[in-house]
Amino acid sequence: MIYFDNAATSFPKPDIVYDSIMEAMKKYGANPGRSGHRMALEVGRRIFETREIAAELFNIEDPMNLIFTFNCTESLNMGIKGILEEGDHVITTSMEHNSVLRPIKVLEKLGIEVTIVNGDPMGRIDPAHIENSIKRNTKLIVTTHISNLTGTIIPIKSIGEIAREKGIYYLVDGAQSAGVYDIDIQNLGIDMLAFPGHKGLLGPQGTGGLYIGEDVDLKEIGQGGTGSTSHLLEQPDIRPDRYESGTLNGPGIIGLGAGIKYILKKGMDNIRKHEEELTEHFIEGLAKLDKVSLYGPLDTKYQAAVVSINVGDLDSSELSYILDQKYGIEVRPGLHCAPLAHKTIGTFERGTVRFSFGPFNTHEEVELSIVAIREISKEV
Amino acid sequence: MIYFDNAATSFPKPDIVYDSIMEAMKKYGANPGRSGHRMALEVGRRIFETREIAAELFNIEDPMNLIFTFNCTESLNMGIKGILEEGDHVITTSMEHNSVLRPIKVLEKLGIEVTIVNGDPMGRIDPAHIENSIKRNTKLIVTTHISNLTGTIIPIKSIGEIAREKGIYYLVDGAQSAGVYDIDIQNLGIDMLAFPGHKGLLGPQGTGGLYIGEDVDLKEIGQGGTGSTSHLLEQPDIRPDRYESGTLNGPGIIGLGAGIKYILKKGMDNIRKHEEELTEHFIEGLAKLDKVSLYGPLDTKYQAAVVSINVGDLDSSELSYILDQKYGIEVRPGLHCAPLAHKTIGTFERGTVRFSFGPFNTHEEVELSIVAIREISKEV
Repeated sequence: MIYFDNAATSFPKPDIVYDSIMEAMKKYGANPGRSGHRMALEVGRRIFETREIAAELFNIEDPMNLIFTFNCTESLNMGIKGILEEGDHVITTSMEHNSVLRPIKVLEKLGIEVTIVNGDPMGRIDPAHIENSIKRNTKLIVTTHISNLTGTIIPIKSIGEIAREKGIYYLVDGAQSAGVYDIDIQNLGIDMLAFPGHKGLLGPQGTGGLYIGEDVDLKEIGQGGTGSTSHLLEQPDIRPDRYESGTLNGPGIIGLGAGIKYILKKGMDNIRKHEEELTEHFIEGLAKLDKVSLYGPLDTKYQAAVVSINVGDLDSSELSYILDQKYGIEVRPGLHCAPLAHKTIGTFERGTVRFSFGPFNTHEEVELSIVAIREISKEV
Repeated sequence: MIYFDNAATSFPKPDIVYDSIMEAMKKYGANPGRSGHRMALEVGRRIFETREIAAELFNIEDPMNLIFTFNCTESLNMGIKGILEEGDHVITTSMEHNSVLRPIKVLEKLGIEVTIVNGDPMGRIDPAHIENSIKRNTKLIVTTHISNLTGTIIPIKSIGEIAREKGIYYLVDGAQSAGVYDIDIQNLGIDMLAFPGHKGLLGPQGTGGLYIGEDVDLKEIGQGGTGSTSHLLEQPDIRPDRYESGTLNGPGIIGLGAGIKYILKKGMDNIRKHEEELTEHFIEGLAKLDKVSLYGPLDTKYQAAVVSINVGDLDSSELSYILDQKYGIEVRPGLHCAPLAHKTIGTFERGTVRFSFGPFNTHEEVELSIVAIREISKEV
């Protein structure tokens, strides 16, 4: 079995991730921050370790500004809805995932003005188009770092500079980049960063995070028990408690910490280099095939390890079904929850088949899939 | 080490829970419902199995009306905020956890009328007080099933009958009861049931659920990718997709399914009977001690395996610290995120130390803690 669906969930995880989760569940599977006994303190301490190491990864000064969530979608909902109010204007792009577009569409009905900047046919976003869309009431810019459809790298540094200059909040969706591409929130001028735990960071599902800049006064979406100021019926306004109601996913967060440690030890640059080489190998192999359509910049300077393709007139579901059943290659067909991105690159009607590589994929696997696609392309 | 903090998170879990989670992560750790390949289908199928078995446990006809969440707090936020609008009236009780009270307090500021019915000094709620609080604009009644402070069992059947008769929605917080006490949503007249995965259901942290009655038109709190109707920028209105945005906690949900299977195999009645016997043993042992204050009905017909105590004038934190350090007994001190419940029973100033028993606790452990408390009580 060849797993090329890392953009959905990375698989496998480093052994240390599995082991840390089991150790957490079996040795200190208590409720963090809810009691003062040894097991509760131990799990609380280890969650804080993950907070610290994640903060280090993103160059966040105060780990308390990094909060843990259920998934990146929750982080994005929090970041978008906690800041925008009636009469505000938000700018986003056509390359976004539905986790950005759907919350924004809900806000549009509540009186928030929305501008969606279009990408070019390779999925690229021109920062000038964002700058030109700024109005007097623009409060927030939201963009992805890397398109989950085409792998296109969005120039978040340039966009961050524009946002900073104009005093507009900038929320980055790191769903496809966290753990693989450098995200230095200070250097990049990012006010909020949403990220999943179960993709590039190599943690388990059920984990995610949101960095919230010190000066971002974000309303919380949910309230509940925080283990702090328990005598009050009002949500505490200290961080991270304000944004972390109810029991956290202790073992999951500890597993996420192990994933980040693995990345730092291995070197994020080395992981990215490996993924870039796999991507180049794959693109070069397919570029020679007549009936194969490739999307995106097709250059790893501008494209991450996410490659969308089509073969002949084959429906994307059919192609992925053949790859799975005949070749044991696991990829993802369809619209990838990014309808406007498909409109942008012209594949809205048929979708694409997406190959996405991870740190444990090999050149042999890439070669086998090139051979498989060659065979399939001859038959269509 | 004696773990008596099961009301916070149950510990340990049955071996099958640990094993199922690891198997899910290692053998089919893909993204459910996002792709069509074998691993994705397998994890999707197993998540559906948990949906079915949880539906069976609560006598829910259509498993699609049971949605998975991050934790019980998220479920409660969804159930409360998705139904109440400006001008509506909601009734709740003083025995609630902050996961109910804090969201309601936020809504109160937005023009929702709130009535909080007080419990008696044993934490009991009289259904007549709820009935008498009903107004023409009452839309929702929210109560816990079992107090997390005193273990008091709330008469949800009587309250459900009142709600049904008056055409008012009834949301039950099953945080302390799911997996131990029978919750038949049809028989009990429950419109929504919020529950955690990591307490009585013996699943891992990072899991929870909300049952939403067929005729409850609940607005969703979050939007995002659902793997369905991906061509639309609007959240789909099919269930469970409408309420499950972003990647679910696949291995966690599969572990939760294993926990429920364990309970069904062991027999929920047997588990409850065991916990009742431990509770009786503990209460009887402590009732003989002069300086020990016990709270709640102190009768397992009306009280679950949650017992709050104080010893002499000892601060609750100090008592739990001694129990932990000197005797290795892990309990929880303080306010337990239930400030009004403490006001109700008269312990708001000092808090209580809470003992909460689970299926793996033994009479020997209970006896050892009675001996420990006797020793401590002689020294204060």
